[in-house]
Amino acid sequence: MADAETRKRVRGGGGAARRAARGAVSFETAKYIERNIPNFDVLNEEALQIIEENAETVLAEIGVNFVNNPPALELWRNAGAEVDGERVRIPRGLARKLCATAPSQFTQHARNPARNVEIGGRNLVLAPVYGPPFVHDAQTGRRYATMEDFRKFVKLGYMSKWLHHSGGTVCEPTDVAVNKRHLDMLHAHMTLSDKPFMGSVTEKSRAQDSVDMCEILFGKDFVQDNTVMTSLININSPLTFDDVMMGALEVYAANNQACIISPFIVGGAMAPVSVAGTLTQVLAEVLAGIAYSQLIRPGAPVIFGAFVTSIDMNSGAPTFGTPEAAQITYGAGQLARRLNLPFRSAGSFNGSKLPDAQAAYETANTLNVGLLSGVNFMLHACGWLEGGLVASFEKFVMDADQLGALHKMAQGISVDTEAQAMDALREVGPGGHYLGCAHTQAHFQSAFWKSDLLDYKPYETWSEEGARDTVMLAAARVEKLLADYQQPGMDPAIAEALAAYVAERKASEPDAFT
Amino acid sequence: MADAETRKRVRGGGGAARRAARGAVSFETAKYIERNIPNFDVLNEEALQIIEENAETVLAEIGVNFVNNPPALELWRNAGAEVDGERVRIPRGLARKLCATAPSQFTQHARNPARNVEIGGRNLVLAPVYGPPFVHDAQTGRRYATMEDFRKFVKLGYMSKWLHHSGGTVCEPTDVAVNKRHLDMLHAHMTLSDKPFMGSVTEKSRAQDSVDMCEILFGKDFVQDNTVMTSLININSPLTFDDVMMGALEVYAANNQACIISPFIVGGAMAPVSVAGTLTQVLAEVLAGIAYSQLIRPGAPVIFGAFVTSIDMNSGAPTFGTPEAAQITYGAGQLARRLNLPFRSAGSFNGSKLPDAQAAYETANTLNVGLLSGVNFMLHACGWLEGGLVASFEKFVMDADQLGALHKMAQGISVDTEAQAMDALREVGPGGHYLGCAHTQAHFQSAFWKSDLLDYKPYETWSEEGARDTVMLAAARVEKLLADYQQPGMDPAIAEALAAYVAERKASEPDAFT
Repeated sequence: MADAETRKRVRGGGGAARRAARGAVSFETAKYIERNIPNFDVLNEEALQIIEENAETVLAEIGVNFVNNPPALELWRNAGAEVDGERVRIPRGLARKLCATAPSQFTQHARNPARNVEIGGRNLVLAPVYGPPFVHDAQTGRRYATMEDFRKFVKLGYMSKWLHHSGGTVCEPTDVAVNKRHLDMLHAHMTLSDKPFMGSVTEKSRAQDSVDMCEILFGKDFVQDNTVMTSLININSPLTFDDVMMGALEVYAANNQACIISPFIVGGAMAPVSVAGTLTQVLAEVLAGIAYSQLIRPGAPVIFGAFVTSIDMNSGAPTFGTPEAAQITYGAGQLARRLNLPFRSAGSFNGSKLPDAQAAYETANTLNVGLLSGVNFMLHACGWLEGGLVASFEKFVMDADQLGALHKMAQGISVDTEAQAMDALREVGPGGHYLGCAHTQAHFQSAFWKSDLLDYKPYETWSEEGARDTVMLAAARVEKLLADYQQPGMDPAIAEALAAYVAERKASEPDAFT
Repeated sequence: MADAETRKRVRGGGGAARRAARGAVSFETAKYIERNIPNFDVLNEEALQIIEENAETVLAEIGVNFVNNPPALELWRNAGAEVDGERVRIPRGLARKLCATAPSQFTQHARNPARNVEIGGRNLVLAPVYGPPFVHDAQTGRRYATMEDFRKFVKLGYMSKWLHHSGGTVCEPTDVAVNKRHLDMLHAHMTLSDKPFMGSVTEKSRAQDSVDMCEILFGKDFVQDNTVMTSLININSPLTFDDVMMGALEVYAANNQACIISPFIVGGAMAPVSVAGTLTQVLAEVLAGIAYSQLIRPGAPVIFGAFVTSIDMNSGAPTFGTPEAAQITYGAGQLARRLNLPFRSAGSFNGSKLPDAQAAYETANTLNVGLLSGVNFMLHACGWLEGGLVASFEKFVMDADQLGALHKMAQGISVDTEAQAMDALREVGPGGHYLGCAHTQAHFQSAFWKSDLLDYKPYETWSEEGARDTVMLAAARVEKLLADYQQPGMDPAIAEALAAYVAERKASEPDAFT
């Protein structure tokens, strides 16, 4: 049982006020991270050259497939590639040359300009989980995702201070027709949040719908002159560019909207088992994909992507937070920087079925790699569970809390006079204590990153308060954030036009569930 | 429900055999990590010089206290320091000069020479949790630690492939008299394991007992000529060297046994709130402590220590896995390398009361920092819980599993011909699959680090198998390791002599419980 002194600290007026202040919801969103720390480079110059040479060999000798896409083959032919059926062989140096027109950094605009993000350089933009058909919450467990879940995730993202981007398919709303859900999804991002978001890629026409909706939201001219969406274009590793993904890329590039060109690698399955082999294939795929984007529209903004996991060779199951995935991510970052392109990789990856210790070890391993490998755009930065099949509400807020630590770490270390703290060292001296000294008093509020979630209380206090584990604390936080959520305002005319567009598009074709 | 195919994969002969092989206990211990990756440097040359200059100012102007230790004051006086009561002011440059006789790398011998470790250079030696008065297991929860718990932890450490060192006070056996428990503890390390271990530091006489026991175990001459113990000497930060810790240091240094000279920092309490200020104090403390060790015996092996946490300024509670602790650890690594000394820091730190997601986020954050900051000796590498108050059985094996990932990450990336995998890329090509190709077949067994604990199975299978979270999986692993434990053999004469020594020392004085 806590003694009277402890009770006073826990329940007294000062403590209660502090707790209330701490629990009160802030709608603040942090600025995207601007790194003041180096990148961690694992490959030396020789190794990088070997990989780059080999990637050129892959493109020139083996080539890539552009499937079911004759116009793409024509573009390649005209650009100087050797086209043989659907196989495109790209002469050494050509892809890299074509990539040179892609910008090294670009602005993605949000409907609230204060939320605009700069993607590239030393920056890191954080976006939530993308793709899961299931959701999980501590109360009801695992179930198919719905549009109501989707809206909750968008709200949680809006309320998460350390998340700069609203994301895309935060979960897959399986209760809405496949050919219509993108409309609801975009509508949710546009109206429930004011952070930048992603477009639909599941069909060329849905990419066009995304552009159309943005033209309503931002204005037609604005969209033609500015990047307002960054969308995820997956490559069918190995070395295959399918017509659906290319269709979306073609729409977005033509409209000057950004695309992440992303190999999808489970090492040993879609790429060689070795790190160097995987990096070679990743580079070849990205070179071909980005070169293609520039053939569509020179200057179209793109991101060097790499979704990377390793594998349990006994079972064939993907594994996460592993050293091999880390090594590939660090190496890919170096390759992206040599291409002068923004880099996408890492995320809150794990293979756990619950937001437990496995989930957190693997997530933390990967988030740390993302920070140090120079990632500029991190998709799946919070909420991922079970190998990407599940979007977890509790894990969303758990991860989102850890993202604050990345912000602080990225600030680097100041050695200005105040930071040197020589006054404090003199004032306190041997055997003294710093809690009350002038320097501490002056700096304590900003000196340490502070979790909004985790528990550091003494055992007795924690026990009294219900002996709650991280998931229970997170469940309470999810509830609070959703309860405190307030929709950002929007010009009623735009709101009406968006709603009308969605309704009209939905009415214009029958529901399809595949 | 899993379909028949899945059932077959899970329960079929091949799977069962693989599972049995996987569960079968291996008594293999990995070699200490030899890094083939760079260190992550966060401070530039200017910043390092500022901190080094300031540390000299601290030593020369403010000085340090050597409490209750007139012989120490005499040594300092003779060395050229200015002694004023218990305050020792060390002229600029003197401490660094005295440190120069400390070896940059040394061998700690184990009773099984295959388990010897090289501490320093690019190596990383991993040792378990140290100090907790409580233990925790999933079955019985939190309770005071006993000698039986201690023995279990030593056995678990012996059975943990990725742990190179048996450690010291893996938990504090509160059921044995304070003045006698060190005998049982050392006896356990010496007889239940054959890995290197740590000596007692709680009293000068107990350090001497540790040396005496080692002389029985290794032979008297061997102990005088070789390092067989590495012990933890904490500095009373700020800037205070107490007589108990110095007493132990004096015994060990005089006997050529190694000591970690370790500031004990809760930022904002025992050190300034700023990272740079903390690094200055850490460096000053270590310079003074290591210089002192060299005054006792030039050439005595020592390690630049830094136990570092941050603080929740609202409550005063230490916090773990934080960005500030990471920054301090990276910076301290750089300072240690500039002094050409081995470096100790990081560990499985966290503030959680359970082995849950908080515990794992914070642990993983810190383990990753340890690897990248060039740590040479990592104490607390597994098993830590609740701010260091608890040694957790489940967390011990959970962390010990993650330590394997550090080994793989440290290997770096090969770009030899096999690693380049060009044959595989040619064989598989666009749209192919790597699982069956020759390169994969040749390399899959070693290509990926493999967890001995975590679960990557599909949801249905995992659910069928009991929907076990990481703690439940870990509890099963603890049970299995202890059940499979076999004591390493020992010369019966030595075993007898050790037992006799312990019995004689215990009989020679009454029990003391403080």
